[in-house]
Amino acid sequence: MQRICFRLQIDPDLLDRYRQLHRDVWPEMREALSKAGWHNYSLFLEPDGTLIGYLECEDFDLAKKMMEATDVNKRWQASMSQFFKDLGAMAPDQAMKPIEEIFHLP
Amino acid sequence: MQRICFRLQIDPDLLDRYRQLHRDVWPEMREALSKAGWHNYSLFLEPDGTLIGYLECEDFDLAKKMMEATDVNKRWQASMSQFFKDLGAMAPDQAMKPIEEIFHLP
Repeated sequence: MQRICFRLQIDPDLLDRYRQLHRDVWPEMREALSKAGWHNYSLFLEPDGTLIGYLECEDFDLAKKMMEATDVNKRWQASMSQFFKDLGAMAPDQAMKPIEEIFHLP
Repeated sequence: MQRICFRLQIDPDLLDRYRQLHRDVWPEMREALSKAGWHNYSLFLEPDGTLIGYLECEDFDLAKKMMEATDVNKRWQASMSQFFKDLGAMAPDQAMKPIEEIFHLP
């Protein structure tokens, strides 16, 4: 099992809307994530727009690819791209780069 | 159960040493954390010195207080303080402020 952490940057002017949309993530998006192997997945948001993701999965590359293959993910990422900074042409999920884990206590 | 995420800043010049010390955290420090209710606790380190912590616990304030009451934590935090930036007079564990969780998928 892999423990994955990533960091992205949300536009600080749009935090309220971003927070609100994540209170009601589409049920089919939640279901697609679960089916693709995203477990115990949390997003944490700081006042400066720092967004931290944590999840557990068997294989993050595979879990990402399985999501990329779904139609609901394309629609979700398209609706999210406006909130992110410094992504260029990347969809937000393509920018999720795992950060090195240096310590773990079960 | 609470899911806690915090962010701290390590001196980028000292990352190798910090990483190395976390490969061999003292067994009594690991044991004290477990006894104080720190579960599934990971530290993630970025090349720029951003340190992200994630853990699960029943009550983070209580889990912190239980650690603060141990002798091994005082020694550990004293040996860690040199690595952190912008802490002032705080011990590193005192600076662990939970970041708002805005989304969770079990």
